[in-house]
Amino acid sequence: MGHDKKEKKSKKDSSKVKYVYYFGGKKADGEAEMKSLLGGKGANLAEMVNMGLPVPPGFTITTEVCTYYYENNRTYPKSLETEIKEAIRKIEKEMGAEFGSNTNPLLLSVRSGARASMPGMMDTILNLGLNDAAVEGLIAKSGNERFAYDSYRRFVAMYGDVVLGLKPQSKDDIDPFEEILEAKKHARGITLDVDFTAQDLKELVAEFKAAIKKITGSDFPEDPWEQLWGSVGAVFNSWMNERAIVYRKLNNIPEEWGTAVNIQSMVFGNLGETSGTGVAFTRDAASGENYFYGEFLMNAQGEDVVAGTRTPYPIIELKGKDEKSYEGLMEIREILEQHYRDMLDVEFTIQEGKLYMLQCRVGKRTAFAAIKIAVDMVNEGLIKPQEALMRIDPDQLNQLLRPVFDLKAKNESLKNGSLLAKGLNAGPGAASGKVVFNAEDAVEWKSKGEDVILVRIETSPEDIAGMNAAEGILTARGGMTSHAALVARQMGKVCVAGCGSLIVDYKSRSFKVEGKDFVIKEGDYISLDGSTGEVINGNIPTKPSEVIEVLITKTLDAKDAPVYQMYKQIMDWADQFRTLKVRTNADQPDQSANAISFGAEGIGLCRTEHMFFGEGKIQPMREMILADSVEARKIALAKLLPLQREDFEGIFRVMDGKPVTIRTIDPPLHEFLPHDEAGQKEVAKELGVTAKAVKERVEALHEFNPMLGFRGCRLGLIFPEITEMQARAIFEATVNVKKEGKSVLPEVMIPLVGHVKELKHQEQIVRATATAVMNETGVKFDYLVGTMIEIPRGAITAGEIANVAEFFSFGTNDLTQTTLGLSRDDAGKFLPEYVSREIYNVDPFVSIDRTGVGYLMHHAVKEGQDTRPGIKLGICGEHGGDPASVEFCHSLGLNYVSCSPFRVPIARLAAARAAIKDIMAGGKAKKSAKKDAKKSDKKAKAEKKNKKKSDKKSDKKKKK
Amino acid sequence: MGHDKKEKKSKKDSSKVKYVYYFGGKKADGEAEMKSLLGGKGANLAEMVNMGLPVPPGFTITTEVCTYYYENNRTYPKSLETEIKEAIRKIEKEMGAEFGSNTNPLLLSVRSGARASMPGMMDTILNLGLNDAAVEGLIAKSGNERFAYDSYRRFVAMYGDVVLGLKPQSKDDIDPFEEILEAKKHARGITLDVDFTAQDLKELVAEFKAAIKKITGSDFPEDPWEQLWGSVGAVFNSWMNERAIVYRKLNNIPEEWGTAVNIQSMVFGNLGETSGTGVAFTRDAASGENYFYGEFLMNAQGEDVVAGTRTPYPIIELKGKDEKSYEGLMEIREILEQHYRDMLDVEFTIQEGKLYMLQCRVGKRTAFAAIKIAVDMVNEGLIKPQEALMRIDPDQLNQLLRPVFDLKAKNESLKNGSLLAKGLNAGPGAASGKVVFNAEDAVEWKSKGEDVILVRIETSPEDIAGMNAAEGILTARGGMTSHAALVARQMGKVCVAGCGSLIVDYKSRSFKVEGKDFVIKEGDYISLDGSTGEVINGNIPTKPSEVIEVLITKTLDAKDAPVYQMYKQIMDWADQFRTLKVRTNADQPDQSANAISFGAEGIGLCRTEHMFFGEGKIQPMREMILADSVEARKIALAKLLPLQREDFEGIFRVMDGKPVTIRTIDPPLHEFLPHDEAGQKEVAKELGVTAKAVKERVEALHEFNPMLGFRGCRLGLIFPEITEMQARAIFEATVNVKKEGKSVLPEVMIPLVGHVKELKHQEQIVRATATAVMNETGVKFDYLVGTMIEIPRGAITAGEIANVAEFFSFGTNDLTQTTLGLSRDDAGKFLPEYVSREIYNVDPFVSIDRTGVGYLMHHAVKEGQDTRPGIKLGICGEHGGDPASVEFCHSLGLNYVSCSPFRVPIARLAAARAAIKDIMAGGKAKKSAKKDAKKSDKKAKAEKKNKKKSDKKSDKKKKK
Repeated sequence: MGHDKKEKKSKKDSSKVKYVYYFGGKKADGEAEMKSLLGGKGANLAEMVNMGLPVPPGFTITTEVCTYYYENNRTYPKSLETEIKEAIRKIEKEMGAEFGSNTNPLLLSVRSGARASMPGMMDTILNLGLNDAAVEGLIAKSGNERFAYDSYRRFVAMYGDVVLGLKPQSKDDIDPFEEILEAKKHARGITLDVDFTAQDLKELVAEFKAAIKKITGSDFPEDPWEQLWGSVGAVFNSWMNERAIVYRKLNNIPEEWGTAVNIQSMVFGNLGETSGTGVAFTRDAASGENYFYGEFLMNAQGEDVVAGTRTPYPIIELKGKDEKSYEGLMEIREILEQHYRDMLDVEFTIQEGKLYMLQCRVGKRTAFAAIKIAVDMVNEGLIKPQEALMRIDPDQLNQLLRPVFDLKAKNESLKNGSLLAKGLNAGPGAASGKVVFNAEDAVEWKSKGEDVILVRIETSPEDIAGMNAAEGILTARGGMTSHAALVARQMGKVCVAGCGSLIVDYKSRSFKVEGKDFVIKEGDYISLDGSTGEVINGNIPTKPSEVIEVLITKTLDAKDAPVYQMYKQIMDWADQFRTLKVRTNADQPDQSANAISFGAEGIGLCRTEHMFFGEGKIQPMREMILADSVEARKIALAKLLPLQREDFEGIFRVMDGKPVTIRTIDPPLHEFLPHDEAGQKEVAKELGVTAKAVKERVEALHEFNPMLGFRGCRLGLIFPEITEMQARAIFEATVNVKKEGKSVLPEVMIPLVGHVKELKHQEQIVRATATAVMNETGVKFDYLVGTMIEIPRGAITAGEIANVAEFFSFGTNDLTQTTLGLSRDDAGKFLPEYVSREIYNVDPFVSIDRTGVGYLMHHAVKEGQDTRPGIKLGICGEHGGDPASVEFCHSLGLNYVSCSPFRVPIARLAAARAAIKDIMAGGKAKKSAKKDAKKSDKKAKAEKKNKKKSDKKSDKKKKK
Repeated sequence: MGHDKKEKKSKKDSSKVKYVYYFGGKKADGEAEMKSLLGGKGANLAEMVNMGLPVPPGFTITTEVCTYYYENNRTYPKSLETEIKEAIRKIEKEMGAEFGSNTNPLLLSVRSGARASMPGMMDTILNLGLNDAAVEGLIAKSGNERFAYDSYRRFVAMYGDVVLGLKPQSKDDIDPFEEILEAKKHARGITLDVDFTAQDLKELVAEFKAAIKKITGSDFPEDPWEQLWGSVGAVFNSWMNERAIVYRKLNNIPEEWGTAVNIQSMVFGNLGETSGTGVAFTRDAASGENYFYGEFLMNAQGEDVVAGTRTPYPIIELKGKDEKSYEGLMEIREILEQHYRDMLDVEFTIQEGKLYMLQCRVGKRTAFAAIKIAVDMVNEGLIKPQEALMRIDPDQLNQLLRPVFDLKAKNESLKNGSLLAKGLNAGPGAASGKVVFNAEDAVEWKSKGEDVILVRIETSPEDIAGMNAAEGILTARGGMTSHAALVARQMGKVCVAGCGSLIVDYKSRSFKVEGKDFVIKEGDYISLDGSTGEVINGNIPTKPSEVIEVLITKTLDAKDAPVYQMYKQIMDWADQFRTLKVRTNADQPDQSANAISFGAEGIGLCRTEHMFFGEGKIQPMREMILADSVEARKIALAKLLPLQREDFEGIFRVMDGKPVTIRTIDPPLHEFLPHDEAGQKEVAKELGVTAKAVKERVEALHEFNPMLGFRGCRLGLIFPEITEMQARAIFEATVNVKKEGKSVLPEVMIPLVGHVKELKHQEQIVRATATAVMNETGVKFDYLVGTMIEIPRGAITAGEIANVAEFFSFGTNDLTQTTLGLSRDDAGKFLPEYVSREIYNVDPFVSIDRTGVGYLMHHAVKEGQDTRPGIKLGICGEHGGDPASVEFCHSLGLNYVSCSPFRVPIARLAAARAAIKDIMAGGKAKKSAKKDAKKSDKKAKAEKKNKKKSDKKSDKKKKK
């Protein structure tokens, strides 16, 4: 940032701006921190020079020149030429060679280098400076004619392709130089480049040049300076080529950044058997193991290692071939890791026994390696725990939790064409099993010991038992937060959702895939990769992760589980830093227990309606819905009361004193009735009513937009007896579990509140019921009454609502749907297109839309705290498990996030990272929050009295 | 307000507070303006005294005493007794009688009197001061024993009922005094009270007193002072009785207001044939005609006129019986109207030839009378036009526009039990016709000259032709803004919607009504009262209103239409005051022409999708939807282009230079395909595809929440070729109509924008198309591109959106649905309950929810104006025709409201009233708006440059 300012200033007075940064000798003009000016490559080259590492001398033309270039009709600043000439003179001096000399030519490489690595831009031109005269000098100097012509022909082709634009734009076109090369091979009867003689290569140079003349109408430039300026221009022009523009768009890289150009003295790995070249990672980028991982080839240039025509050797074998260089590399590896305190990706060249470093950068790595390296480096004392946490993307933790495929088996299977389709990676992990098409079959087959995959067009609450029985769930419709996805994640099940190419036929119990001949029938094996969305034909073996074996299935001892140890270490560190609490969304005792194993500190969302689908519960629920009078409804509710109470008791026992937020009934009632004739007939039979009555009720309950319909607190307002039953079940369970000597802290949450009067109405029922239960049992207990903030009006009027609500929990699923006017169940038709066109940069159901939904959340937090200082604030939407959203919640000052049990570790890490970012920013966030608070100080003071009053009131009520 | 302050101050120093306000003689302590202290009755009595009118002397105990009474455990301020005694002494002096005297007793009436008239409170106690001794004095004084005992027995019964609480609380219980009275009549063999002798009445007094002793255990109080304090307490206690509390809640009357007590010297209309009593309106409260309208009875007390046991005479007949009093009354009528400048409701009593005024207040009147009186009073010079406008509720204008039933015929029919059901009064007016059950039949029957009523469970866009053919529309489902209601109002059709008790059976072409035996079959006559929601069996004759006959059907000449003249006068005045423009929602030339007749200044919402249902258009539309490639879609769109262009040409011609806002396609595509198998087969046949293909497309388009689904600009984003076709149709029509020499100003409006990038995408298509059309035709034209603000995110990010949008139009229907999380089509199940429980005081789909939706509108206006000063702002939701919402839009500073054609006059009046309120408030609203503007002045200045730039840009674009 500081630098950017300087840049702006300097533009006014361009004569004084430094456009060229030299590196070489012992001290470079630049350093690693100057990436925005020098690009990543240039900054790291400068840094290596400053560290005393052997780097061929060179210089970087700054990104400012790129900016100037585009702002001034593709021209350069006046002083640039002088600066470049000076820099080249320095290289000449250091290398003892002369640019453009016919006897002792200095050859250069030209490489682009933006702030962020950017495929699609011009990469490299090697051997620049060669011409018909200079090549003779190179022959004389190297004593190797073949090497010299090989270098020359490579340069001419590269220059023709990249600078003169002869590289074909589509794969169908042929590179003119390739064509000539192939013809020459054919004529010589050879297949490999290495078999060309010096004479062949010399002829190729001439033929390449003729081709250039023919196609472009101009001669290949013999003048090295013309070559240099041509190459610099090519780098800058490549910043605006189509692929680069697309890449920038996709990766949010601003156009203004520009690219730098790195010009460096050539060193040659192809000068014979004492020369060579290689690439390496300072640690294994796949496993994270702490050993030097890389490959090299002797007598080769960089491109040979990558091209795959010769098989490179593992780096360890360099020891036998050139021990000095090997030891040098090992030493440099150590120096680099100590200096950069990270795993690095390096390129090196050995020229006649002398080692040169050509590039270094922080290395890309797998999720698993990222975790292992971060933990190892703390243990090695290289980095601090907070740095380790900042290097692990919270989502990467999934790798430690999910069942995994046997990778070899999976790859082999895919090679054989087993991929059926791809859907949304809605529930990560690996699952294999036999296909079933309905919940009943899933339960039945599972009870017989079969692993099953439940395949549905879409799932509904009726399928919950079947989903629980299945290893994985596959749906043809629905998005990342569809019913299937939501429930699967809560259960920790593998799920591929919204797999649009599936054509499911329930009648024939089979599915087809659009455009494919496969028919998968009931009982056939399929495998789901919930991390990639792949649906695979056949049974690929899976295994649970160590962490699960230790924490959940308890089939492995912690001391025998190094991966678990790593997981635990990360979680311990995370807990030291985070200030945000992490709760879970769970509605069954076993889910709750799992969540505690994962570190959940309470339940943030217990959906009572899921309970109604359990054994023996759906019947009285349906009876309640079909009731045509308050009395009939009360009779049905009386049957539900003991069942609900039992559910709550189970959860309270497991949670033992951790807060449990229970949401009163939320979904539209028609969800509890079957929509098909057969199902309705069955219900009618069970309840002793006519099928017509059931059908009519279903029709009466039909809604055009159920999401915006008769649900949430609206149900409790029209049928207060439902709220009363639920409150009674909660409080009687509280009393019963307290009697067992456990601690219970229920928080009753009213959903879909848009107006404080709705909440007031429901609150009064809940409080009256609590008082009644205390009086009946003689047992006192604490509880809270709060609300979800999940529709815009709730957020807008949060100040009023906080007069009644003791806590807010943001229901960001519905808040996103209403704020964006976007049904998550229907968005599949256009939302992917929206995301790919970057209208929304991320799916707003995956990560909170901070501008829209975030505005309302911020407003609600402020207003809520103004009315009721210290009001408890949480989030229980699916976003509670999304790292970016967790960070946002931290910045809003929420008390907790709540997510599905298997996301708890991820949320813990995300919360820690958010706190660490705060510390790194010097507590800026907190300061600005204080400022805000000061602003509304007057208001707050004025309202304090009222608050005290109302607080006392609610205290009194509690004591009752 | 000023007074309230005094009140508060005085409480601290209660010895100095004046609790009793005397009226009598020539000057009263109070005046009409002091209603909050003296109540309406007391203030007007004081005012009449000050005007020199004959009022029996008396005094008012202030509302402050009521407040004191409840704040001090139902006790009175110390000084009250002294003040009352002093006041009574003054009455005694003026009346020449003595309170409590046995020879010349002063009798009093005690009446409650709150600030607002409040049924449910204690009303009146007459003849207070009588006891066994005083009655003898009264006999001596009046020489009329029967009169004296009649007065006495009335007093004892009233006192027992009201003060001692013997009045039965339920209708099933019997009043003890009635019981005794009936027994006495039975014993005497008489049926009327007037037939009692003095002796009978004297006995009744004794029997009443015995009953009091028996029931209450205490004697009837003989002491006049005890009687007085008892009555005063009864008035204050009645302020807190249940009926009064309920009434206050329903009418938003604060409890703190309290009631006053009026104590006044009795005058007697029952002293013989030279005495009498009556009630009158200074003008006819039903027709508004300017003549003295009232009734009277000689030798009677007030209750006799109301009771209906004797038939009162029209006031004109008083002239023959007591010309002096009649002339006096006529003079007082003149004085009162000149003084109050309004129509008044008065009570008078004549005691032995002397006229007394007992009460006056502004009179209640019908809508028609309200309008006529207001206009007449301006013409008479009594009030100014702005006062007249403030006295007409805009909705009352409907009375001048709608077809009306022959009232006698309707009432007679209802008397015969013809009322079938009641639904929502969704489209006002009266309609009769034969029942049909589908749109095709409606069109066919209409073409045969039949008037039809279209009865549907619900309507959909396919029904539009049928709705247009019908006189009225009746639906079983849907709310005030359902499809049926929306379209009906736009067409000016009578509509009763959401009539839940209807059981419609399409198969048998009949409907039943829940709980009734009627079966109404196709072809049976029914009548709809769209103003009340009544559905009536049979054919009740209707007639169009004068205004319609002059403006729309042109079947009446303006000069022969006095009601039209009145309408025109009001509209002319309204246009002088209003600052808000009024546009209309219309999508057909004839609708547009109607709207212009009603004063529309442009089209605020032209829904292009309605056009697709026209003759020959639905087929290519369906072809477009069924297209499975961009090419196929473009072929279908090419067929639609000329059809759409023609539609726009028609509208542009009619609007001739008035701005026309055209919304690009908005509804989900499935709305254009039939959902039943037969319909799908037909479509398949027409388009030459398989029925299966049609069915599959319908299923693929199915949405769980279509309101939040694939619609609005989302369609245009995924199928840009649709937007392009629509833009082309608009601009080609613009060019064609311009060539005819007319002026055209199209405003292209993109719906459902939540993110500026959505708008940007669509804007680019529209602008590119405009440029193309200009280039192709060589004709330049102006146009605007803007957006609807109809989802919360659009409002929240209005600042960003205004960078692209040249105008905002608030779509408050959808904005209400999303902000409140409330589907208007489904809310019928609970919203009425919400409104009746006052969770929302009004249906938020009828009147804008200012707290929630209004917050977002305010935010969007501010942000939009910050980004683009002077941005054009309007509203095109149904709220644009709701007077309260129009006022809110005025306060927000919008430029225009847009509503259905038949609401245009109402919106014009509402806009005028809003402007007049501003003027009355001393331009407060404008000042505070200025303040706001100042606040953001710095910001504005900083951004001014940018705005100028972007304005220039858009200008440039326009010029292109």
